[in-house]
Amino acid sequence: MAKGDKISTEPYKGVRDFYPEDQFVQRYIFEQMERVCELFGYEEYNASILESAELYRSKTSEEIVNDQTYTFIDRGDREVTLRPEMTPTVARMVAARSREIPMPARWYSVQNFFRYERPQHGRLREFWQLNADLFGAIGVAADAEIIAMAYSLVKGFGAADHDFEIRVSDRRILDTIYDTVGVDADKRAEVTRLLDRRAKIDDFAGELAKLIGTASETLIDQLDRTTSTAYLEALRVELVHMGVNNMIVDTKITRGFDYYTGMVFEVFDTAEGNRRAMMGGGRYDNLLSLFGGEPIPAVGFAMGDVVARDFLETHNLLPAYAPATELMLCVVDESAMTHAQRLAQDLRREDITVAVNISGKRIGDQIRQADKMKIPFVIAIGTQERDSGKYTIKNLASGAETTLTADRIAEHLFSSLG
Amino acid sequence: MAKGDKISTEPYKGVRDFYPEDQFVQRYIFEQMERVCELFGYEEYNASILESAELYRSKTSEEIVNDQTYTFIDRGDREVTLRPEMTPTVARMVAARSREIPMPARWYSVQNFFRYERPQHGRLREFWQLNADLFGAIGVAADAEIIAMAYSLVKGFGAADHDFEIRVSDRRILDTIYDTVGVDADKRAEVTRLLDRRAKIDDFAGELAKLIGTASETLIDQLDRTTSTAYLEALRVELVHMGVNNMIVDTKITRGFDYYTGMVFEVFDTAEGNRRAMMGGGRYDNLLSLFGGEPIPAVGFAMGDVVARDFLETHNLLPAYAPATELMLCVVDESAMTHAQRLAQDLRREDITVAVNISGKRIGDQIRQADKMKIPFVIAIGTQERDSGKYTIKNLASGAETTLTADRIAEHLFSSLG
Repeated sequence: MAKGDKISTEPYKGVRDFYPEDQFVQRYIFEQMERVCELFGYEEYNASILESAELYRSKTSEEIVNDQTYTFIDRGDREVTLRPEMTPTVARMVAARSREIPMPARWYSVQNFFRYERPQHGRLREFWQLNADLFGAIGVAADAEIIAMAYSLVKGFGAADHDFEIRVSDRRILDTIYDTVGVDADKRAEVTRLLDRRAKIDDFAGELAKLIGTASETLIDQLDRTTSTAYLEALRVELVHMGVNNMIVDTKITRGFDYYTGMVFEVFDTAEGNRRAMMGGGRYDNLLSLFGGEPIPAVGFAMGDVVARDFLETHNLLPAYAPATELMLCVVDESAMTHAQRLAQDLRREDITVAVNISGKRIGDQIRQADKMKIPFVIAIGTQERDSGKYTIKNLASGAETTLTADRIAEHLFSSLG
Repeated sequence: MAKGDKISTEPYKGVRDFYPEDQFVQRYIFEQMERVCELFGYEEYNASILESAELYRSKTSEEIVNDQTYTFIDRGDREVTLRPEMTPTVARMVAARSREIPMPARWYSVQNFFRYERPQHGRLREFWQLNADLFGAIGVAADAEIIAMAYSLVKGFGAADHDFEIRVSDRRILDTIYDTVGVDADKRAEVTRLLDRRAKIDDFAGELAKLIGTASETLIDQLDRTTSTAYLEALRVELVHMGVNNMIVDTKITRGFDYYTGMVFEVFDTAEGNRRAMMGGGRYDNLLSLFGGEPIPAVGFAMGDVVARDFLETHNLLPAYAPATELMLCVVDESAMTHAQRLAQDLRREDITVAVNISGKRIGDQIRQADKMKIPFVIAIGTQERDSGKYTIKNLASGAETTLTADRIAEHLFSSLG
C-alpha cells in the first residue's frame, strides 16, 4: 500500500461488523440459546473454525464442499476448510472419545460458520449458529426432546404458539418410496436434495424427471399421499405430553444434507412475509461410523443468528438496547478526577458497572453523553461532593434525584434497577 | 475419499477441540474478562474473523503480515486474512463511525485469532483473546484506567498482588533516545521490535549493532539509565489511588507492534517457572488516522486464553468442573418415561436445568452416569413416583435424600445449590 492512501473502513464482503447495539442483540439471542440448552441438560463444547477439508468430503452435501466453502492450502500443504456447519466437527469429537464420554451425551455450541455464496437476504458469508445434539440415544424420547428444545427456544424469545409451526417428517418415508419406485442408490442423495429445494424450484417435476425419468411421477404421488407414520404419531403424542402442540407432519420436509437417517424437522415462521424455515434438524445415525469404531446414533438441530433476528424483528420481539453500564460518574473539574476514580473502584467492588467520564467536557455535555449512551444513572462529582462525601444520583429517564453517602449508592442502584 | 476409508478424528494442526470440561474453563475465563470490562463501563462489540489483507499492511508489525498470517485469495480475487489481532479491526470500526460514536468510547470483545506459526508452548495457531480499548481520551486518567482493568482481571481470577507485576514504560522514551542517538526514521520500527525481543535473543547487542552500527551501545546505555519519567510517576500515583500498588517502571518493555505511541505495559507472572508476560497493551494515538478523518487517540490491552489458563494452573486457581445441569431424572422403567419428561418440563419452567436419562439402562447405571458427569442431584422415577406424586431427591456428593412433592423440588434445589 502506498503511503498516504487511506485504508477502507468497510468490512470484508458478506460479513458483518457488530457495533455495541448489534452485539447487544447477538448476545441476547445467544444467551437465550444457551439457556434453553442448559435447561435441557446440554453441556457447551467448542472447536476451531479450521478443519481438514477431508472432513466435508464424504457424507455431507457435496454441493457445499465443492462450491460453497472457503477451502485453501496452508503453508504446510494441508487442505483447510473454514467450517460451513458444525455436525461433522461434533461427530468427529464425539467419535474421538466415544469410550470415555458417558452416553447419552448432550452437547451444544453457539459458534460461527462460513459459506462462500452470493450475499443475499438471510444468507451471509459468515453467520452464527446454535447446534444442539444428543448422542447415543434412539427413539421417540430422544427425537421429542430435540423438537421440544426447538419449541422452547422460539417460545423463550417471547413468541406465541401460533407464530410458528414445527413441520416434521422422516427420511425412512423417502427410503421406503425410493425402494418401491426403484430409485438407484447412487441417485438418492441427489433426489433428496432436489426434494429439499422443491418449493424454490420453478420446474420441480421436470428437474426430477431429468434425474429419474418416469419414476418421478410415481414418487411425487406416493410422497404426497403419505400423510404420517406410526412413529411420527407416537412422536406427536410425546410432544403433546411435553406441552408442544404445534407439530405437524409434512412429508415435503426432507433437509438437504445426506447424513440424515430418520426424523427430520423444520420450524417455520407463520407470519406473512417471513414464511420460511428458521431452524431445522434431524436424526443422523450413521455419520459417526465414518470415523471407525462403534456406530453412535445422534439427533440434533441448529438455528442461525440471521433468521433468529429476522423472526424477532418480524414479531416485534427484539429487546430494547440497554448497555451493561449502570452508572456514569461525570467529573465537574479535573481536581475531582482522582476522587471519582476512587469512588468508581469502590462501587465496582460492590458489583456496580461504572464508567468515569474522563472527557474533560462541560458537565452538561457529559450528562448528555450518558443519556445518548442509554446509561440509566449519573452522578456529577466536583470538589463539593469530594469534600462532603455526599452524592446526588440522577435517574436520567425519570429525572428523579436522590442524595446519598457513598456506601448507600450500590443499594440504591440495585433496588432501582431490580 | 475412497469409500470405507476412515476419516481422522484429530483436529487441524495447532488448534484445539474444547470438550465440555475444557469449554467450562474457557467460559470461566471469558466470563471473568467480560465482567471486569463491564464493571469499568465497557461495551461488547464483535466483527468477522475475515478481513481484507490490506488492513494489516500498513501500520502493524510487518513480520506478522508476511510470515505469520493465514492469507488467501478468495474466489472473487480478494486477498483475505484471518485476523491475527483485534486492534486494526476495532480501529477500522471506530473510524467508520467516528462522528456518531459518543467519545470517549469504551469497547471490549473476547474473540478468536489466527497466526500461522509453529505450534509451541503457549503459542497456538488459533487462540482467544480479550481486547479492551478506550477511544477519544488522552492522559493519566485514561492510561491508568486501562492498567487498573488489567490489574482487576488478574485479581478477579483470585491472584494475590505478589503473584504478578505490572511493568510499564513509554514509547516516548524510545523516541527521545532515537532522536538523541540518531536512529533513522525508517529503522526505528525494526529497532523497536528487536528491543521487544531483547530477553529472548542470544546476541542482542550484536543484532542491534548490525542494524544501527556503533549507535547501538549509546542506545542501550541511555535506555538502561532511564529509570522513569514525570508522566510515568503521575501514572503510578493515580494507580495507587485506584488501589493498584504493583506497577513498576521497566524501560525494557517496548511491545512489538509499530502502532504504539505512548504508555506501553505488560503484566508478568512472578511465579518461578512461568515468568513471562501474560498480557500487555498501550497507547496508539495515530492508528485511526490511517482510515482518513480526524485522528482519535486510543489506549487498550489484550489478554489471551492460553496464558490465562497457564496462570490459573500455575497458581492453583482453576475452578473445579461443574456442569450446568443441576438434576438428572433417572427413569426406572419405560412406562415412567413420559411422566419424567413432563416433570422435567415443569421444572424447566421453574428455571431448573434438568437432564432426563433416556438410556433405558439399569437404574444403578443411570445414577452412576449422573455421578460421572458431576451432576449434583438425581431423582429416580418409576411407576411408584408417577402414581404417588412424591419424589426422592438425592444429593450425590453427601448421599442425603429428601422426599418431596413436585412443586417443592425447585425450592429444594435453589436452597441446596445456593
